[in-house]
Amino acid sequence: MAEQEAGGTMAEEAKMGEDILQVLQDMANRLRLHAIRTLCASGFRHPTLCSSASEIMSVLLFYIMRYKLTDPENPNNDRFVLSKRLSFVNVATGWLGQGLGITCGMAYTGRYFDKASYRVFCLIGDGESSEGSVWEAMAFASHYSLDNLVAIFDVNHCHSSTQPLEHRVDLFQKRCEAFGWSTFVVDGRDVEALCHVFQQAAQVKSKPTAVVAKTFRGHGMPHVEDAEHWHERPMPKERVEAIIKLIESQIQTKKKLNPKPPVEDSPQINITDIEMTSPPAYNVGDMIATRKACGLALAKLGRANDRVVVLDGDSKNSTFSDIFKKEHPEHFIECSSEQNMVSVALGCATRGRMVTFLCTFAAFLARAFDQIRMGAISRTSINLIGSHCGASIGEDSPSQMALEDLAMFRTVPNCTIFCPSDAISTEHAVFLAANTKGMCYIRISRPETAVIYTPDEIFEIGRAKVVRNNVNDRLTVVGAGVTLHEALAAADDLSKQDISIRVIDLFTVKPLDAATINSNAKATGGQIITVEDHSSEGGIGEAVCAAVSMVPDILVHQLAVPGAPRSEKPNEPLSMFGISARQITVAVKCILMN
Amino acid sequence: MAEQEAGGTMAEEAKMGEDILQVLQDMANRLRLHAIRTLCASGFRHPTLCSSASEIMSVLLFYIMRYKLTDPENPNNDRFVLSKRLSFVNVATGWLGQGLGITCGMAYTGRYFDKASYRVFCLIGDGESSEGSVWEAMAFASHYSLDNLVAIFDVNHCHSSTQPLEHRVDLFQKRCEAFGWSTFVVDGRDVEALCHVFQQAAQVKSKPTAVVAKTFRGHGMPHVEDAEHWHERPMPKERVEAIIKLIESQIQTKKKLNPKPPVEDSPQINITDIEMTSPPAYNVGDMIATRKACGLALAKLGRANDRVVVLDGDSKNSTFSDIFKKEHPEHFIECSSEQNMVSVALGCATRGRMVTFLCTFAAFLARAFDQIRMGAISRTSINLIGSHCGASIGEDSPSQMALEDLAMFRTVPNCTIFCPSDAISTEHAVFLAANTKGMCYIRISRPETAVIYTPDEIFEIGRAKVVRNNVNDRLTVVGAGVTLHEALAAADDLSKQDISIRVIDLFTVKPLDAATINSNAKATGGQIITVEDHSSEGGIGEAVCAAVSMVPDILVHQLAVPGAPRSEKPNEPLSMFGISARQITVAVKCILMN
Repeated sequence: MAEQEAGGTMAEEAKMGEDILQVLQDMANRLRLHAIRTLCASGFRHPTLCSSASEIMSVLLFYIMRYKLTDPENPNNDRFVLSKRLSFVNVATGWLGQGLGITCGMAYTGRYFDKASYRVFCLIGDGESSEGSVWEAMAFASHYSLDNLVAIFDVNHCHSSTQPLEHRVDLFQKRCEAFGWSTFVVDGRDVEALCHVFQQAAQVKSKPTAVVAKTFRGHGMPHVEDAEHWHERPMPKERVEAIIKLIESQIQTKKKLNPKPPVEDSPQINITDIEMTSPPAYNVGDMIATRKACGLALAKLGRANDRVVVLDGDSKNSTFSDIFKKEHPEHFIECSSEQNMVSVALGCATRGRMVTFLCTFAAFLARAFDQIRMGAISRTSINLIGSHCGASIGEDSPSQMALEDLAMFRTVPNCTIFCPSDAISTEHAVFLAANTKGMCYIRISRPETAVIYTPDEIFEIGRAKVVRNNVNDRLTVVGAGVTLHEALAAADDLSKQDISIRVIDLFTVKPLDAATINSNAKATGGQIITVEDHSSEGGIGEAVCAAVSMVPDILVHQLAVPGAPRSEKPNEPLSMFGISARQITVAVKCILMN
Repeated sequence: MAEQEAGGTMAEEAKMGEDILQVLQDMANRLRLHAIRTLCASGFRHPTLCSSASEIMSVLLFYIMRYKLTDPENPNNDRFVLSKRLSFVNVATGWLGQGLGITCGMAYTGRYFDKASYRVFCLIGDGESSEGSVWEAMAFASHYSLDNLVAIFDVNHCHSSTQPLEHRVDLFQKRCEAFGWSTFVVDGRDVEALCHVFQQAAQVKSKPTAVVAKTFRGHGMPHVEDAEHWHERPMPKERVEAIIKLIESQIQTKKKLNPKPPVEDSPQINITDIEMTSPPAYNVGDMIATRKACGLALAKLGRANDRVVVLDGDSKNSTFSDIFKKEHPEHFIECSSEQNMVSVALGCATRGRMVTFLCTFAAFLARAFDQIRMGAISRTSINLIGSHCGASIGEDSPSQMALEDLAMFRTVPNCTIFCPSDAISTEHAVFLAANTKGMCYIRISRPETAVIYTPDEIFEIGRAKVVRNNVNDRLTVVGAGVTLHEALAAADDLSKQDISIRVIDLFTVKPLDAATINSNAKATGGQIITVEDHSSEGGIGEAVCAAVSMVPDILVHQLAVPGAPRSEKPNEPLSMFGISARQITVAVKCILMN
């Protein structure tokens, strides 16, 4: 595998004089100096941390990659993903091996959606490769034949006992090959060898390429290279200065290299202001699960804009994302693990070129909390759909009941959270999410529920709906999703007993419509009952408690799913867990009797 | 690699008559029948789902594994971990490839702590292997030479397009070998070959063994074996009955096999009622970070009981778990990824034989949310320590600030959450956690803070401390961790202005001491300020809001870290994020002026 056909690159390589190699070496040393100076200027004297990959970076940035230096966001540029934030990095992959999955999303977009020439490079630290998410991405990239993707493993002989592979480049090679990648081993200090290897990588067809680069921390620094522990403690200032002088003395040319311009073959796209082409095609009283309405809405969205991509894994028959897949097969990506699916989605969404949705069971998103969190910190616009939320899934195992997803997404900075309660509000949630910057989460349910809105109803983010309203209302019930229907049933039941209650459908849980909640609570005796198919911690109940916590004379009573439920027969799950119409009715009566 | 030395097993094998092979085959068919009948009885007619591994199970349970059938929890028994819940499964691994990591923890405990003969087997579905956590566990097992561990990959030719490997047993073999495992490929329908392979596995030294078994869904069912889609749709009742008849007709013997008894060489242990051998050795006013006090407390705990194990990864110098490591090197496990670390800890904790703690940056625990959740559903007793919580880490990247960990752990069923505020309460938190059933989370901080309690102070779970108390108090501030010290500073500052406030240290956030909060709020004008180094969603503020939500005339004002903070200079992070003494002082004055 290491002996790839070099083919057409040989001729090109012949043109590489010693001259250019020296310039690349000099550029590497300049990068090294720049990194040392930047770090030291911020009082962080760990020069060894940033020097192992200077030659790799020099060759990539000034010889291999094609891009416009003055226009880093140009869609035709080659992409580069690094574990540290640089100008060509689109997301904050900071740590923990998330970069390669994101790279996969960029490469997939380049190959299958943009069908463009740009290529994608990812530099991975050897420590990162202990993260399983790296191997999920490795499997994804080879499965989808992402030959526009090059991953460089910077194997820099870290001494930590927790990074077992140390300098075993042969092991990295074996693992990469076993995961279906074309794999080259190279001395990461040798600019000529690096040029050669990256040129070979460009010729590989139908496979991603791994470049396993043996590098040395502190390369270029006398008595430091590969010495233990310098990356753990700050280096004395004088020693840093001596190192800087030595590196400066090795720079032989003043020439600078400019990157090659990109091939300008990315299509023009427009993903803003996507309009719902026709009103939702449901009638009040139709019975349809929000998960199914969501699948149908995604398919409709795909008709409204040709840059919509939907990701799902083994759950597409259950989330109904297969409806989208049937209609737009080339815009559907099959994934097989949630962490990598979220990373791939983040990659698809970079540079604002795709409207990206991913669907899975809401419970499985806990697996990708870290990827979600990092995506939000990087301010990327992806839309996550969590189906089968809460105990209303009924027959499945408790491990599949998402009772923590609202708590999780509510902590995600700037995340918009939709909890639609019927097919019409679900369709609006999908179109609103598609047009909203930042991360969106849409929480949908398994059971069939009645359509309660008319096709001309208008929905806005942060605007709740008062769905049952009477001057005699003595209490306000706040619901969302399946629990809204329980609240409505309770209202019907109570009205027969001449007890009138107000019912609010939150629509979005974040931002929460505190004004509507407060004004209605005040109008109904200051009493609120929240009812949610979620744990009592961090969900709708606590959001409402917090929203009214500074308003005098409002009391909030929470109905929520108690901890560690066991799975129940599908006919009565909400009742088993205390969030059914019957229990709402009882709670209302208890409160009003006091 | 596939050609292992069979060695001593040959003699044993010679004793295997055809007779015993027929009995094992019959047992396999009985298991198959049992599974089909159990599933059908519960109305779930997917007989193909459970038949591929019957021969593997028969050989393991009745020929290879050593255990007491009547005493499944016997510590000397071999362990078996399966993706479905059986009597020998100790945790609900349900899905998503968590089983192998747990198996690693069991095998590590067997080899390094119990130093006993029992072995650990894990049956993994081929679909699961797309989860990166499987490969983290693969790397862990080979790094620690867990030769008492056998993983069986049940490669049963799943047709789903999302499981790219299909029947490529050679690829499984390559990957397992690349991850350092002794690897055998076997026909999973052939009981003789299976016996042979498992006997060989028992002879392998210093490496875990992977058995890649090629199996077929619906094996033994005419016209069904390996046919597409039968596992997705229920089979007609008549067809199931015909299949049952056919399998019954293939059973030739009435003999039953009993498992071999285990070698009884596991040590007697006692991990209950671990006492603090001496009071905490701190004086009021000492400056020490809770993370350091935690490391010291763990080392002390290790002296009090010889079954304490601490896991950490690259963060041990920062979490101070290296203090424990220095003193108890053989009870420290170096890990390199959070997901696998949590799974290994769950494995160590099974059967109640180890007091298990794991330490990492609190922010990194988001990566393991799913493992944490599943561990709690399985009611395992592990203790997680999250250091560097919140914005008080100051100089690091926002991605390393845990601002969502309280929200996450509060949703975990039955999880006890400690937020100690000084070295003495931290030491108590560690000892209380060690003696508490179920999951515990201890949240500790980076900055040095003053010791505020005396060594004889008594701490209890669910009992808050009123640390500043005066009859003239006009408001109650609730803090925990670093924010408690800010609250105390604000109280000092305000007292100079003749404004007296009460200050509460929560100690545990879950369970929350609602009684203390309510009574003190009532005694101080019904005004509470919560101040937390966490996001405003799902943390201390909302917990307090929920706790007082049904009590009239109490208002809660939240101070918390706003969404998506940027990292700041270490000198003033709390002030930057609005949770410092100064901001508490301002908030108090604003409230009291109204």
